[in-house]
Amino acid sequence: MKLIDGKAIANQIKKEIAQEVMQIKAAGGKTPHLAAVLVGHDGGSETYVANKVRSCEEVGFKSTLIRYEDDVTEAELLACVDRLNKDADIDGFIVQLPLPSHISEEKVIESIDYRKDVDGFHPVNVGRMSLGMPSFLSATPAGIVELLKRYEIETRGKHCVILGRSNIVGKPVSMLMMQKGYPGDCTVTVCHSRTQNIKEICLQADIIIAALGVPEFLKGDMVKEGVVVIDVGTTRVPNTNTKSGFKLTGDVAFNEVSPKCSHITPVPGGVGPMTIVSLLRNTLLAGKKAIYS
Amino acid sequence: MKLIDGKAIANQIKKEIAQEVMQIKAAGGKTPHLAAVLVGHDGGSETYVANKVRSCEEVGFKSTLIRYEDDVTEAELLACVDRLNKDADIDGFIVQLPLPSHISEEKVIESIDYRKDVDGFHPVNVGRMSLGMPSFLSATPAGIVELLKRYEIETRGKHCVILGRSNIVGKPVSMLMMQKGYPGDCTVTVCHSRTQNIKEICLQADIIIAALGVPEFLKGDMVKEGVVVIDVGTTRVPNTNTKSGFKLTGDVAFNEVSPKCSHITPVPGGVGPMTIVSLLRNTLLAGKKAIYS
Repeated sequence: MKLIDGKAIANQIKKEIAQEVMQIKAAGGKTPHLAAVLVGHDGGSETYVANKVRSCEEVGFKSTLIRYEDDVTEAELLACVDRLNKDADIDGFIVQLPLPSHISEEKVIESIDYRKDVDGFHPVNVGRMSLGMPSFLSATPAGIVELLKRYEIETRGKHCVILGRSNIVGKPVSMLMMQKGYPGDCTVTVCHSRTQNIKEICLQADIIIAALGVPEFLKGDMVKEGVVVIDVGTTRVPNTNTKSGFKLTGDVAFNEVSPKCSHITPVPGGVGPMTIVSLLRNTLLAGKKAIYS
Repeated sequence: MKLIDGKAIANQIKKEIAQEVMQIKAAGGKTPHLAAVLVGHDGGSETYVANKVRSCEEVGFKSTLIRYEDDVTEAELLACVDRLNKDADIDGFIVQLPLPSHISEEKVIESIDYRKDVDGFHPVNVGRMSLGMPSFLSATPAGIVELLKRYEIETRGKHCVILGRSNIVGKPVSMLMMQKGYPGDCTVTVCHSRTQNIKEICLQADIIIAALGVPEFLKGDMVKEGVVVIDVGTTRVPNTNTKSGFKLTGDVAFNEVSPKCSHITPVPGGVGPMTIVSLLRNTLLAGKKAIYS
């Protein structure tokens, strides 16, 4: 069993990005600039955005954090998006989700100029990804595919079973895994809460991508020998033994499943660290105008 | 075994659309107007476009056919698209594919205003469909889903196996079948040329959507009793017994497979007639500004 070290790969890619940014600057090019919009004071969102801003600095990007209180109006937020769309110095920006319930997330995402949509959530980027055209890939699917690539895991002709059909993981990663070429060319099955024989299907899988958000859903008796398991789950399960009072728990019962795996991602330290790297890469691509001119 | 009569359903829906158009006109509303752009003289394309125009007339739409010779330049075609985008009387339009090789189909499709993209090929419509947002659904996937609905075929929790991963059928119909709600909520498997154990997978299917373009690919020993089979294949196979010299042949070996089916579509007369109906429905929705304002 080989542990897929997402943290090490993420650090490696950050170094690669930092090096490219140095070269760009040395050649007199523009420093990539990411802006993040954070509404309210949700603990998770605060942490994510702080990590994103810190990572930008690590690789030499310029970053801007724009904060609003919970009571910001939709109109104010849309006006902010409009300003960022027009600001020539900003290469890409994200609006951290979730937003307060009085604001339409759909409307906000659609108002972002897709050429600056480094989260890859805009319909244009989702559509282009699905069609196999160049696009900003959303962070988690891109991170998963990158891990498979860096560990040279064979995907061609393999049966990839995806647990979960969310817009941010299950659906897009299913499109990427069935795409022609490598990593891709998988037979892809998408399972979800309505699936009836999920154990039977998982037992057929060469690769399982678990993104249900159900802690330790995938048990040892649901996988075959030699399977590759990518665990996207990150549920905060209350735990009295940790300082924070919770333990980040994946969708995979790691102790049972890992002995049967050829490769497996841990939680934390697997897919998680890769998501920020995907965002950095998209920002770099945006800065270079590599996808949209 | 119940034959799914696509022709009858298509005629039924055409009547429904015609009735709605009459009501719109009676209320002093705008007559829906579809334009079709045809480049060159490909036999298949000529027939498809002629059918589309005729169907428009049947339901009371206004239609406009714009023809170019094979040697039209990309710039000329893009200028035509631009005029149609700006023409307030045109509610929706299509550019019949394939285009001559010196013209980029991607570029042409992307230049169409997505609010008039009644073929549902523009990345915005593909993306919104994938995200479960209102959109123009592309013709074949929409036609398939409509047939399932009209025959009240249960999809929830069923295993739907899709043969083929094309941008116009396999990928979008996989998104629709896994979507929450009815018709949808299927466990979805997408197989293609790289799939290794396609027979084994088909034998597990409650619903099979065959869209490989390989005549009579699906044999009797590849399906279980009670399966629902939707045959999207329409290959012209040379045949000396027909007047045209060919026979339209589906992806399903109908004689072997049909006795095991609870429902099956014939070729011709199954999915085919539904595709034009999807186009008419999108044009009606465009005319009513029901999806985009």
